[in-house]
Amino acid sequence: MAAALALAGCATAPAVSPQSATAAAPTVPPAMQWLYGSGESAASSLQAYSAFRDHVLAAARARPAQSVVLAPGSTLEAPRFLACGDKPLAVILDVDETAIQNLGYEYDEAYRARSYDEGIWNRWEQTGANAVAPVPGAVDALSAVREAGVTVIFNSNRLTANAAQTQAALEAAGLGPARPGETLWLKGDIAPGSAKDPRRAAVATRFCVIAMAGDQLGDFSDLFNAEDLAVPRRRQAAASTPFAEMWGNGWFMLSNPVYGPSLQGDFDDVFPVDRRWSDQGGN
Amino acid sequence: MAAALALAGCATAPAVSPQSATAAAPTVPPAMQWLYGSGESAASSLQAYSAFRDHVLAAARARPAQSVVLAPGSTLEAPRFLACGDKPLAVILDVDETAIQNLGYEYDEAYRARSYDEGIWNRWEQTGANAVAPVPGAVDALSAVREAGVTVIFNSNRLTANAAQTQAALEAAGLGPARPGETLWLKGDIAPGSAKDPRRAAVATRFCVIAMAGDQLGDFSDLFNAEDLAVPRRRQAAASTPFAEMWGNGWFMLSNPVYGPSLQGDFDDVFPVDRRWSDQGGN
Repeated sequence: MAAALALAGCATAPAVSPQSATAAAPTVPPAMQWLYGSGESAASSLQAYSAFRDHVLAAARARPAQSVVLAPGSTLEAPRFLACGDKPLAVILDVDETAIQNLGYEYDEAYRARSYDEGIWNRWEQTGANAVAPVPGAVDALSAVREAGVTVIFNSNRLTANAAQTQAALEAAGLGPARPGETLWLKGDIAPGSAKDPRRAAVATRFCVIAMAGDQLGDFSDLFNAEDLAVPRRRQAAASTPFAEMWGNGWFMLSNPVYGPSLQGDFDDVFPVDRRWSDQGGN
Repeated sequence: MAAALALAGCATAPAVSPQSATAAAPTVPPAMQWLYGSGESAASSLQAYSAFRDHVLAAARARPAQSVVLAPGSTLEAPRFLACGDKPLAVILDVDETAIQNLGYEYDEAYRARSYDEGIWNRWEQTGANAVAPVPGAVDALSAVREAGVTVIFNSNRLTANAAQTQAALEAAGLGPARPGETLWLKGDIAPGSAKDPRRAAVATRFCVIAMAGDQLGDFSDLFNAEDLAVPRRRQAAASTPFAEMWGNGWFMLSNPVYGPSLQGDFDDVFPVDRRWSDQGGN
């Protein structure tokens, strides 16, 4: 079956002749080598899920007064967290590159040397459930969290129309159960668009959310996705009080250098002007 | 000064004409956008250093019987950790992209669209001390660790010949003190070559090492750098018992998708054959 898929990939991939100087054979992009191939990335996610599990088990015993979901009206400068009351406990996780690795899709994209395509991604959601893997550490952490009586809820921008297949992908990876409309919230649920705050707010009406995990800042608050937020200011906001204290302490980040709004910025955005250097050549 | 450096960069960079179809303007590689420009990466390292600090403070109180440094004769299949005795406590950190970000060097490399060059890196070690920044979270964590009476020791493959400048870079970033031969160990110290085990062993004769931090598996054990270790097996070793339990629990990984031995592998190495998928086109 795997061989058949690989052959199908070959049959429809662009012609590749490694001997030619102009048509290079496809290679695995460095960020994919890191995320899907390296022990370093596996270590990084095991470490994140170890901290996630420890935090959730401790918070489940302590029953915090405050949720880790921001209250309506919060700003980056003045955030407030929702109160918990005596609601049952839950955690909220993103799906893609947080709970599961989309190995099949990324293989196809890299092998054909293509960039992201919405139509292809939609077909991936519909047919790729068996070509994913759990992010290292996720299966054990979610199992421990559920054993402590904490509900696991997924909040993803996959489409509501493909809910059954996304449920199948999560469950095939050993991360379920995920029930659409109950513990699996998707794009189109509650409100149109890719904003995740409305779904977080809906979950928070029923649950005290004691931890969130994601690979993009938008998995924690849509405030980080404001269109007028410049790249350096976005980084600075995430790394300053009060958000700096949240990382590893209620908010858990999985490293994903392969795609998403984390990959932005020109030279002036990424490299501060007072931290530049120019090689002056050998002596 | 910064402007002068930037201008110097422009003056010696290859001619760039954004209007030309054949000579594209340099762009920031995605992995650098993520590591140096994103809030996601800042969150990831703040989270790692939060776990590092908490672990070290707890271990300093508990005084573990075992160090986190592997004993000589260990293998990936049968590792043993050194005993601590009543030695004073220390932590060992890598330098580049673990404690400091090499912003100046990476800017120069990306702006000139060059790949790694040993001669340029050597000049960077010699003259770049003021164009680095601390990795988010490192300054506060190292300060807390030292306050608890734990010695901070750096183990880097920068050159012994440039020890004074590497000390200056660490101290300019707020991460010092770092004393060559005492708390700063470099390539050429103890033994020739880039293996870090001999330096770890030397530190461990005097200290009980309660935590290590790095961005590459070789910052924890040279066993992961064995030449005959295939990419998938290297990842599997890092993610399996007994090493899986070390991440976030004595061994702390900083995510670095920009360079290093973590960036290896062809399609067969990175994408398991049973997790492939091929788009079959629209209906």
